[in-house]
Amino acid sequence: MSQIHGLAAHAAGAELLRFHYEPGELAPHEVEIAITHCGICHSDLHLIANDWGVSQYPFIPGHEVIGMVAALGADVKGFTLDQRVGLGWQSNSCGTCEWCIQGKENLCAQMEATCIHRHGGYAERVRANARFVVPIPEALESPSAAPLLCGGITVYSPLREHGVNPSSRVGVIGIGGLGHMAIQFAKAFGAEVTAFSTSPTKEKEAHALGAHHFVNMRETRALVGVAGQFDLILSTVNADQDWSIFLQALRPTGTLVFVGVMPNPVALGPVFPLISQQKSVAGSPIGSPARIREMLDVAARHGIKAQVEAFPMAKANEAIEKVKKNKVRYRAVLAN
Amino acid sequence: MSQIHGLAAHAAGAELLRFHYEPGELAPHEVEIAITHCGICHSDLHLIANDWGVSQYPFIPGHEVIGMVAALGADVKGFTLDQRVGLGWQSNSCGTCEWCIQGKENLCAQMEATCIHRHGGYAERVRANARFVVPIPEALESPSAAPLLCGGITVYSPLREHGVNPSSRVGVIGIGGLGHMAIQFAKAFGAEVTAFSTSPTKEKEAHALGAHHFVNMRETRALVGVAGQFDLILSTVNADQDWSIFLQALRPTGTLVFVGVMPNPVALGPVFPLISQQKSVAGSPIGSPARIREMLDVAARHGIKAQVEAFPMAKANEAIEKVKKNKVRYRAVLAN
Repeated sequence: MSQIHGLAAHAAGAELLRFHYEPGELAPHEVEIAITHCGICHSDLHLIANDWGVSQYPFIPGHEVIGMVAALGADVKGFTLDQRVGLGWQSNSCGTCEWCIQGKENLCAQMEATCIHRHGGYAERVRANARFVVPIPEALESPSAAPLLCGGITVYSPLREHGVNPSSRVGVIGIGGLGHMAIQFAKAFGAEVTAFSTSPTKEKEAHALGAHHFVNMRETRALVGVAGQFDLILSTVNADQDWSIFLQALRPTGTLVFVGVMPNPVALGPVFPLISQQKSVAGSPIGSPARIREMLDVAARHGIKAQVEAFPMAKANEAIEKVKKNKVRYRAVLAN
Repeated sequence: MSQIHGLAAHAAGAELLRFHYEPGELAPHEVEIAITHCGICHSDLHLIANDWGVSQYPFIPGHEVIGMVAALGADVKGFTLDQRVGLGWQSNSCGTCEWCIQGKENLCAQMEATCIHRHGGYAERVRANARFVVPIPEALESPSAAPLLCGGITVYSPLREHGVNPSSRVGVIGIGGLGHMAIQFAKAFGAEVTAFSTSPTKEKEAHALGAHHFVNMRETRALVGVAGQFDLILSTVNADQDWSIFLQALRPTGTLVFVGVMPNPVALGPVFPLISQQKSVAGSPIGSPARIREMLDVAARHGIKAQVEAFPMAKANEAIEKVKKNKVRYRAVLAN
């Protein structure tokens, strides 16, 4: 196969530069995707900056890929050439551990991430184990569907795992790239949805996305005022908060779920309220391939889409700067 | 009815003194119990010392009561005079909130505790709403069953709520009053049980109680050595720990459950491991009356009992001192 051209970070925090690599023979279990769109996820920015200490340079970021099947490995079944498909955060797993056997590949200890120690989706093509490649339902448009592959599944999965249903009251902390999808999904589960944001200007948008209520997180009185109200609160922010106030906002048996990574250790406050009201705190990581397919089907049937600003692939650096400055509402997507 | 005699704390941390009170008319929904046994729970010590700031003096401690039905309110059904019954931490609830309607009265915001703002079981008699009075299965002996009413349900409930089963690997932190019952219950669920203790001398006892493995918590290497092994870890201790090491000891999707109250706020460490491995932290409070009946049935059928040291009621102060000095293996029980 021919070289793959893309845009790579060559050092921590550096601007992306043109780069190409030799992918070698297509493995029997792999699909090669001709990329049409790739979302810019905050994780890409963290990897470019080596915030997590796992980046190896040069590497091509990008893990919210949509494109067409360009080549199929000899053993791949269930896909056809030119079929529209997607690829998210995960591109492979061991296939043999108990989690893989259970179909929960996202918990595999040997999980391979699409753009860690390999090259991702800010490129013309990308490859992955066919198991992690998902068909894109026809009803979804590629630019607004790309961010579902990582951001969408990240917020959908905990709603599903924690049994959100039409009787549930759900809070979403942070109305940004993740939060604006979380509101839409929580509404699709039939839940009563409250948006928590530090930006009062987002109140109108939160309602337009389907939130029933809006709480300005900067107003402590407003936070205290919703004590005991929520079955599930989903934190999509990556800034430290006074988590004890959000624990207080939970109803008995309620759960605070983190999908955003904060810089500092989690301080929960006193354990007593957790015990006396049987509350929980949990984390949630992307989702399995099966759950991603389910989430895309739900998005297609309920008209859920990321609100995106599109940029040509060549303007990736410009797009990244705009994301860093928090000026994109709500997700940036690169298009080839 | 006649006065009720007991032993009361008259000031924070004071020795208990003889005391009596006038209970008034027996309410239509109440049962009066002639107490034969009452366990000494650490919560009694906290209430005597006013550690939680809720104590009102004088009050009679005690909330692990076993005795015989001495009187039945006009509306009480399902009990007979002289029947052997028990009463635990909770003696009443509102009866009308969603939690009471669900049969989860232990989550009622108006829950009444047997010895908070009223008089408990270090006495000759005690009264409670019949809903919180439970029959004691014939197979259970009163002294070793009394601690099941609070300590037993406290450790049984989270095992049940979190779905422990024969495929589960369960860790129990602290082999004391609560922990020694937790090991027995976890074994009854069919789980593989690991005891965590700071006392190497308890290894033999832990095995005798049913633990398959023993880890000395003072040995960091041993703690790190069990990384990724447990579906559920139950913390029964009231001392601060490095919780991040116990989170690390969980398998993906595992849960760390607190039933012991530590003095300081809970610091979980970095959120990333919680997210990437879908782990949880939870609290758990006693259990509903229905769950207490179930737990007693399980204890009767599986031969689960508290290991107790019995004291005459008149020697309550001596017993309390011994409990404070951590010299009772594992629960003290007062007998009339």
